[in-house]
Amino acid sequence: MHPGADTFLLELFAIFVWAKIFGELFERLSLPAVLGEILAGVVLGPNATALISPSDTTSSIAQIGAIFLLFTVGLETKPQDLIRVGRQSLRVAVAGIIVPFVLGFGYMMLRGDAPHEATFVAAAMVATSVGITARVLGDMHVLGTPEARVILGAAVFDDILGMILLTVVVGVAAGTGIRWLHLGLAFAEAAGFALFMIFFGPRIIGRMRPGVQRMSSQNAPLILSLAICLLFSWAAAKIGMAAIIGAFFAGLIFADYSPEWNLQPRVHAITEFLAPFFFFTIGVRLNVRLFTGDVLVSAIVISVLAVISKVVGCGLPVLRDGWPVALRVGIGMMPRGEVALIVALIGLEMNMVSQSAYAIVIFMTAATTILAPVLLQYVFRKEAPVKTEAAAEPTEKVGF
Amino acid sequence: MHPGADTFLLELFAIFVWAKIFGELFERLSLPAVLGEILAGVVLGPNATALISPSDTTSSIAQIGAIFLLFTVGLETKPQDLIRVGRQSLRVAVAGIIVPFVLGFGYMMLRGDAPHEATFVAAAMVATSVGITARVLGDMHVLGTPEARVILGAAVFDDILGMILLTVVVGVAAGTGIRWLHLGLAFAEAAGFALFMIFFGPRIIGRMRPGVQRMSSQNAPLILSLAICLLFSWAAAKIGMAAIIGAFFAGLIFADYSPEWNLQPRVHAITEFLAPFFFFTIGVRLNVRLFTGDVLVSAIVISVLAVISKVVGCGLPVLRDGWPVALRVGIGMMPRGEVALIVALIGLEMNMVSQSAYAIVIFMTAATTILAPVLLQYVFRKEAPVKTEAAAEPTEKVGF
Repeated sequence: MHPGADTFLLELFAIFVWAKIFGELFERLSLPAVLGEILAGVVLGPNATALISPSDTTSSIAQIGAIFLLFTVGLETKPQDLIRVGRQSLRVAVAGIIVPFVLGFGYMMLRGDAPHEATFVAAAMVATSVGITARVLGDMHVLGTPEARVILGAAVFDDILGMILLTVVVGVAAGTGIRWLHLGLAFAEAAGFALFMIFFGPRIIGRMRPGVQRMSSQNAPLILSLAICLLFSWAAAKIGMAAIIGAFFAGLIFADYSPEWNLQPRVHAITEFLAPFFFFTIGVRLNVRLFTGDVLVSAIVISVLAVISKVVGCGLPVLRDGWPVALRVGIGMMPRGEVALIVALIGLEMNMVSQSAYAIVIFMTAATTILAPVLLQYVFRKEAPVKTEAAAEPTEKVGF
Repeated sequence: MHPGADTFLLELFAIFVWAKIFGELFERLSLPAVLGEILAGVVLGPNATALISPSDTTSSIAQIGAIFLLFTVGLETKPQDLIRVGRQSLRVAVAGIIVPFVLGFGYMMLRGDAPHEATFVAAAMVATSVGITARVLGDMHVLGTPEARVILGAAVFDDILGMILLTVVVGVAAGTGIRWLHLGLAFAEAAGFALFMIFFGPRIIGRMRPGVQRMSSQNAPLILSLAICLLFSWAAAKIGMAAIIGAFFAGLIFADYSPEWNLQPRVHAITEFLAPFFFFTIGVRLNVRLFTGDVLVSAIVISVLAVISKVVGCGLPVLRDGWPVALRVGIGMMPRGEVALIVALIGLEMNMVSQSAYAIVIFMTAATTILAPVLLQYVFRKEAPVKTEAAAEPTEKVGF
C-alpha cells in the first residue's frame, strides 16, 4: 500500500530473476554465472532493450551487494595466510600498476590525446576489480590456493596504490600540482588501516569473544560482524579507499571465528540476495552504441594492452614459481571494475576526458571483466575440486 | 570512492548499530528487543535529537526488511496448520475489525469531528500489524502454539478485510460513493490469492522440486525462494494488499521444504540484517512534539479504545477455549503498524483528516505497538520453552 511500492518491488524482482536466469544459462554453458548476471544488465538495461532502468535505490543496494561480496571473501581469508603471501602480493601489485599505466599512457599519447586525458585513461587501467575474480574463484572452490591468496592480497595493495595514483592524477589535472603532504597523509592512513587490520584486528575480536557470548541478543556474533562490516566499509570510504576494501578487512578479522560462530553460510545468504544487483548494475553501465570506427579501434587496443600489461606485470614477480602460477596470478589481476569506472567518471566530471575516452575506459572495463572469468576458469581448471553429485546436492539423495 | 558513499554507509551503520544497542538494552531489561529498535528511531530520529535522518534509500531498505520479516514468519507457518485454524481465524478477524471501527467512529463523532475524519481514524484502528507480534512470539519460540497460528491466520484475513475497508473509506471520502464492482473485484482478487496460496502453493513447489535440484546454480532452492518472495510481495502490492502479506504467503508455500533445503537459518540471516531498518523507521515516524492538551487526551482515549476493542473483539470468538487463550489472541491482534500509518497518510494527503487527527493515529499506533510486546510477553510467559544456557548459546561451552 506504500505509494510506488509495487514499482520498486517489481524492479527488485525483475533484476534478481533475470540476473539469476542469465547466470543459470551461463552455468549450463560451463561459463561463470557472474558473466550471465552482467550480461543480463547489458541486455535489459537502458542502453539496449531498456526493459529495466535501475533506480538510485537499486544502485545503493548494488553497493551493499558489493560490500557483502567482499565481506564473504574476507571471511574465507585467514590473516595468517595473507601475511605469508604479503611480500609477494606487494611485488605483484606494484609491477601490476606500473606496466598498465606506462603502456596506457604511451598509447593514448601516440593516438594524439592530451596528456591529462592520457593520464586519466592510464589511471583507469591500473586498479584491479577483485570482486569478479573472487566470485569466480569462490564458485570454483579454489579460494584456498596460494595463487588466490596472492591475488586477493595484491588486489588489496593494488587498491591502496590505486587510490594514491588517483589522488596524484586529480591533483595534477586540477593544476594544483602534487600535494605531497596530502598524498603522504593519505598513504599513511591507508597503509596504517591495512596493517592494523591484518596484525591486530583478529586479536581484538578474540578479546571481545567472551563478551559477545554473554550478550542477550540472539545471534550476537552475526550482528557484531555485520556492524563491523558496515563500520569498516564506511571508514574505508571516508579515508578515500573503496568501501569494499573495508568490508574485506571486516571479513578478514572474523575469519578465524567464522566456523565457530557459523558466520560464513549466513553471511553468504545475504550476499546471495544482494550481489546480483551489483553485477546487474555493472552490465547496465555498459553502452554498446557508443562505439564506432576510431573509438572502437582504440578501445580494442587499450583492452588488449590492459590484458597484456596486467598478465605480464603481475605475472613477472611470481614467474620463479613457474609459468602456470604466473599466468593464474596475472589473469586473476586482470579484471577492472568499479574503480576504473569511477576514475573515468571523475575525469568526465572534471572535463578532463572526452566522451570517447570515457567510452574507451568503459569498453576496456567490460572487456577485461568479460574475458577474466573465462580465462580464470581455464587456468584454474586443474585446481578445482571434483564436483560430485552427492557433494554438490546433498538433498539429491532424498527420494520423491 | 562513490560520491556520497561514505554518508550512505555511515547512515546504514548508525541505524543498524543504534537499533541493536537499544535492542540489547531492552533484552537485558527483559523487554522485547523490537521495542528498543523502535525507540532508537524515536530518540535518534529527526523529531527528537535529529542525529539520524533516514534517506529514501533507507526507507526502501526498511520496506525490504519488513518483507523478509514476514517471509521468515511464513517459512515457520505450515499451510496445514493455517487451514486447521482458518475458520477460527476468520471469526477473530471479522469481530476484530467491526468492534474497533464502531468504537473509534463513535468516539470521534462524539468529539465533534466530521464524519469523513471519524471514518479515517476508525479505519486506521482496524488493521493489525502482525510484524511486531510475530517478532515477539518468534523471539519467545512460541510461534508453534495454537494461539500464535490463530493470530497469524487472523492477521492475514485482517489485512484482506482491512484493504476492502480502506477501499470503501477512500471511495466514500472521495464522494464517488462505494464502487461495488471495484470492491467486489478487489475482494475476489485478494481472497483468491490467499486461498490459492494456502491450498495449491505448496503443491506447486513440490512439483518444481526435482527441477530445482537439477539446476546448475549453487543454492538454487534459496534463490528460488527469494525470487518467489519478491514476486509475491510485488503481486500483493499490485492488487492493493500490503506487500508483506505476499511475502508471508511466499514463506508459507516453502514452509514444508524449509528444513530439507535449510532455508530458515539463511533467510533469517537476511532478516537479521534488514529488519532493524524497518523497526527504526517506525520509530522515526513518531513525532512526540505534536501532542498538547486536547489532542493528547483524544490520543489516549483512542489508544485505550484501540486496545480494548481488539482484545474484546478478537478475544470473544475464541472465548470458549478459555480466558487465557482469548486474552492471548486479543493482545496478539492489538498492535497497529504500517497499515494504520498509511491510512492516516492517505487521509492527510486527501485533506480528509486534520494534522491533529493524524497525530492521534500515530499516537495510537505507537501506544499499541509499545504496549503489545510487554503484554504479549506476560500472557505467553507459560508457553515459552525454558531457555537453558546450553541451548541458547551452544558456543558457550567452548573454553577460552
